[in-house]
Amino acid sequence: MNKKAVILLSGGLDSTTCLAIAKSKGYDCYALTVNYGQRHKFELQSSKNIVKVFKVQHHSIIDIDLAQFGGSALTDEIQIPKNRGENEMNEIPVTYVPARNTVLLSIALAWAEILNALNIYIGVNALDYSGYPDCRPDFIKSFEKLSNLATKKGVSGSQFKIRTPLINLTKAQIIKKGLALGIDYSLTSSCYDPDVNGNPCGECDACLLRLKGFKEANKEDPLNYY
Amino acid sequence: MNKKAVILLSGGLDSTTCLAIAKSKGYDCYALTVNYGQRHKFELQSSKNIVKVFKVQHHSIIDIDLAQFGGSALTDEIQIPKNRGENEMNEIPVTYVPARNTVLLSIALAWAEILNALNIYIGVNALDYSGYPDCRPDFIKSFEKLSNLATKKGVSGSQFKIRTPLINLTKAQIIKKGLALGIDYSLTSSCYDPDVNGNPCGECDACLLRLKGFKEANKEDPLNYY
Repeated sequence: MNKKAVILLSGGLDSTTCLAIAKSKGYDCYALTVNYGQRHKFELQSSKNIVKVFKVQHHSIIDIDLAQFGGSALTDEIQIPKNRGENEMNEIPVTYVPARNTVLLSIALAWAEILNALNIYIGVNALDYSGYPDCRPDFIKSFEKLSNLATKKGVSGSQFKIRTPLINLTKAQIIKKGLALGIDYSLTSSCYDPDVNGNPCGECDACLLRLKGFKEANKEDPLNYY
Repeated sequence: MNKKAVILLSGGLDSTTCLAIAKSKGYDCYALTVNYGQRHKFELQSSKNIVKVFKVQHHSIIDIDLAQFGGSALTDEIQIPKNRGENEMNEIPVTYVPARNTVLLSIALAWAEILNALNIYIGVNALDYSGYPDCRPDFIKSFEKLSNLATKKGVSGSQFKIRTPLINLTKAQIIKKGLALGIDYSLTSSCYDPDVNGNPCGECDACLLRLKGFKEANKEDPLNYY
């Protein structure tokens, strides 16, 4: 059995839970953080703090300036939407970053092939999410198929697996699972629009989903909202 | 009809011919060059010279340091193979860069969605090539399918097309087509191991395929081999 895994780690609640799950399954974990020009750069610092706690084999931070293309509230001078209602949540918001998960997974695939790691973890979630198309099971299945056509390892008979342990969980279930695995969620950063100290706003989609999750799990979010 | 296209432009013979073909079909061309840490950085300068001649709408150069992962003779301290015979050419060589075309296409997809460009050109070729898995028609079809699952535009009913006009041509046919379109191939750079002035070695796979192409086309390669 191949026991190496590449974990896409943004520094948020979901990817950190993914890392804890992969560790609990006995994988040697290689954490990959992509600095794609996101406004909320505080999550890069969170990722550094998280890998220390989890004692990963290696943490790579890769820079790619998607912000030079513009087109998203997460990388451009577009206002982050606040306090969206449930109906609005069904529409893909301006925080959508075009092709982001395709870019992230392709970089993870490049590293995984070099490491001889056949498992790639990504913390996508298709229940309590913002409607992004590249979080859905069909997208993940399609990327997995691509991985095995795109690579020397794939065409040689090895099979890459894209692992999405959170995809069918509610945010409350994710939080409960993470707490059971001992995660200190004060290390994680979810907010799209944190203040200079990294404190979250409590009003963007990411904060609203996180707060709803903690509430439904009957747990307290350890972060200090500004 | 959507008349915008993103063209992946390395500065080599194939991608330059792709750009000329897209121009000849009337597309507004947006050239994308990815600096992924390749040793043969001279091709970046070639791409800048080429876009001036072709008067593209915009030329983006994106940096992503795949070299930090290592694992390929094109990005790492591994010797470039020289004068490989035809039998060896059937094996995937050490110049293979893991998941490179997946990374390149995913970045092109990100830009294309922002530009509202539904056409992405890539100069892959599955005849006179080095056996890279991510140059084959199956890979391209799979990426096209992925594009339309991965993006807001794709799930909204628009269809991205990955255009590969060279995929079934010999190198000689590519060169003839390019010359008919007026390309000055002295602007292009194919060598994996050029000297400090950008002159090609004539012995790496890329040079051997290029020279064979010019010979079969009964044309002279305008480059100065060292």
